[in-house]
Amino acid sequence: MAGHMRIAVDAMGADDAPRTPVAGAVEAVAGDGTDVILVGDRERVERELDSLGVSAELRRRLEVVHAEEVVGMEESAITPMRRKRRSSIRICAELVKEGRAQALVSAGNTGATMISAKMVIGVAKGVDRPGLAAALPNASGWTVLVDVGANVDSKAEQMREFAVMGHFYAQEMLGIAQPRIGLLSIGSEEGKGTDFTRRAYAGVQSTGLRFIGNVEGRDLFNGATDVIVCDGFVGNVLLKSAESLAEMVVGMLRAEIKKSPLSMLGALLMVPAFRHLRRRTDYSEYGAAPLLGLRGGCFIAHGGSNPKAIKNAVRRAVEFCEAGIHEKISNKLADLHATPIPSSIQEPEVQTS
Amino acid sequence: MAGHMRIAVDAMGADDAPRTPVAGAVEAVAGDGTDVILVGDRERVERELDSLGVSAELRRRLEVVHAEEVVGMEESAITPMRRKRRSSIRICAELVKEGRAQALVSAGNTGATMISAKMVIGVAKGVDRPGLAAALPNASGWTVLVDVGANVDSKAEQMREFAVMGHFYAQEMLGIAQPRIGLLSIGSEEGKGTDFTRRAYAGVQSTGLRFIGNVEGRDLFNGATDVIVCDGFVGNVLLKSAESLAEMVVGMLRAEIKKSPLSMLGALLMVPAFRHLRRRTDYSEYGAAPLLGLRGGCFIAHGGSNPKAIKNAVRRAVEFCEAGIHEKISNKLADLHATPIPSSIQEPEVQTS
Repeated sequence: MAGHMRIAVDAMGADDAPRTPVAGAVEAVAGDGTDVILVGDRERVERELDSLGVSAELRRRLEVVHAEEVVGMEESAITPMRRKRRSSIRICAELVKEGRAQALVSAGNTGATMISAKMVIGVAKGVDRPGLAAALPNASGWTVLVDVGANVDSKAEQMREFAVMGHFYAQEMLGIAQPRIGLLSIGSEEGKGTDFTRRAYAGVQSTGLRFIGNVEGRDLFNGATDVIVCDGFVGNVLLKSAESLAEMVVGMLRAEIKKSPLSMLGALLMVPAFRHLRRRTDYSEYGAAPLLGLRGGCFIAHGGSNPKAIKNAVRRAVEFCEAGIHEKISNKLADLHATPIPSSIQEPEVQTS
Repeated sequence: MAGHMRIAVDAMGADDAPRTPVAGAVEAVAGDGTDVILVGDRERVERELDSLGVSAELRRRLEVVHAEEVVGMEESAITPMRRKRRSSIRICAELVKEGRAQALVSAGNTGATMISAKMVIGVAKGVDRPGLAAALPNASGWTVLVDVGANVDSKAEQMREFAVMGHFYAQEMLGIAQPRIGLLSIGSEEGKGTDFTRRAYAGVQSTGLRFIGNVEGRDLFNGATDVIVCDGFVGNVLLKSAESLAEMVVGMLRAEIKKSPLSMLGALLMVPAFRHLRRRTDYSEYGAAPLLGLRGGCFIAHGGSNPKAIKNAVRRAVEFCEAGIHEKISNKLADLHATPIPSSIQEPEVQTS
């Protein structure tokens, strides 16, 4: 079935586009037998393909679709819907909508990608608002965090949808038969948290999935749960702060190592250990964050992605479509719509964690 | 002046109390010439002091105040106000209220400590709600995050108070003449964020302090700002997730190192580098989180604190009181109360980060 999958890659999105997206797409086609549509400035994309010396055989599975415009990293998220209707990201979304591609991958402007996907591809049946998911590494596997920024000012009712999305994502993509789902709060007891989390609790509980109750910030990286549900504001700051902390630690360690020849020798001996650690924590290994709850696949990669990250994102997108995750989410949510969310749980005697 | 400072230390709060708080208090008295009141089960505290072989001279500067009760780590935050009025944490707060101590230090139940401090010591003039601050390390210094969990369901108006608290804390304790203050949001442009952050923006701006606008999760550890203001829910999950991420990385690295003798040798050579990195990032070096906006000092240490963390917390508490930070916060807030908060800034065209 993989041979029939076609993934639209935004050739103009990424800090050093079109170089990285094109190189990543070529790796994906060569490695997995996936077909890719590269969307962007035809001349620049073709030149990039030429410079990579792509064989005629691979070249046949790499279609190029021209896009006159590009949405810059700093432009408003609405740009592809208003001023730049011929932008590469919007055309990617149109290819998915028309069924010419099953999913899109972009390392470009995140907001513009989400808006294009939501408005052009459209929201899946039964879904109120899509959620952006990120897979966070822990010592023994991954924890899926939803939503990491597709929504601002989320409603508590959306947490139920995010739980369903996270459940099927963890089940199908991480191979966890019955994923544990936690609701992010500031205390693990039922009733601990804000008005928002107490209302969300009842909703997540009503899914009938494996809800383990409230989890805390410490559970993001300790493997205590497989899925964590939170609102998009919180998920976004958590994800960005984690990246920033990891960068700081690496930077500090580098500076320390350079202070002494013995440390430098030690670091050399530890290269395999560091490399393996990096592989477990590097976002380029995971590839990209899926926008869940659409009528097609949408994977958003980091602006600083390398070709491997793009290749992995394409691979994830194929697996995602093959697993029929969106259909499963839609079906489950349709069932749930028949189930009203129970009224929120009681407030505990004092609200302090 | 340091000689006249007296700090109440909750001898029963900490995972291995009274051992750690007593040992930390002894170190503080020996090192800094601070007087300490140890509050707890007299017999157990005296026995601990005996086992440490404390000299008669030091012993004179270590008063013991008896407390019949202890609030356990898992008990409700309200316990010292209701069931356990003779608990060590409540008596610590009473000593501060009565002026027998200038500040308290506890590594016990965080919620119970905050409630005791707020209700017994009382809130400083001009302050609506106290805020818990944490100092996060970055490559070149520290960033103060307020609030990390003193409040759930914070109001946007409180962000103005937290900004004032963070300003004076960073100025006096970190020695930053004009601390940069950022408001945590999901996009750096003015107007990016939620309804809450847009309302908070106007409030923080109205302080007349050095407000640099919205900051993002990535700015927690990159040194881009000196103070970050956020609501207590977000601050709490951020702080706990950062601790969890750091623990995961250390655990993974340890596991990697053990896989090969060369890595083990490398790690040995890197011990000084690791040790220095740890010193920069270990919470025991910083000591404790201050609860800001009270009529006296309150420093909350980690439950797993070692004696050095308690000693450092006592030292911070002394510096804090000497610097008159609470008076400065009160005066500034009194001035601001004469200034109405301008109406919130405009919503941008699309709400997606």
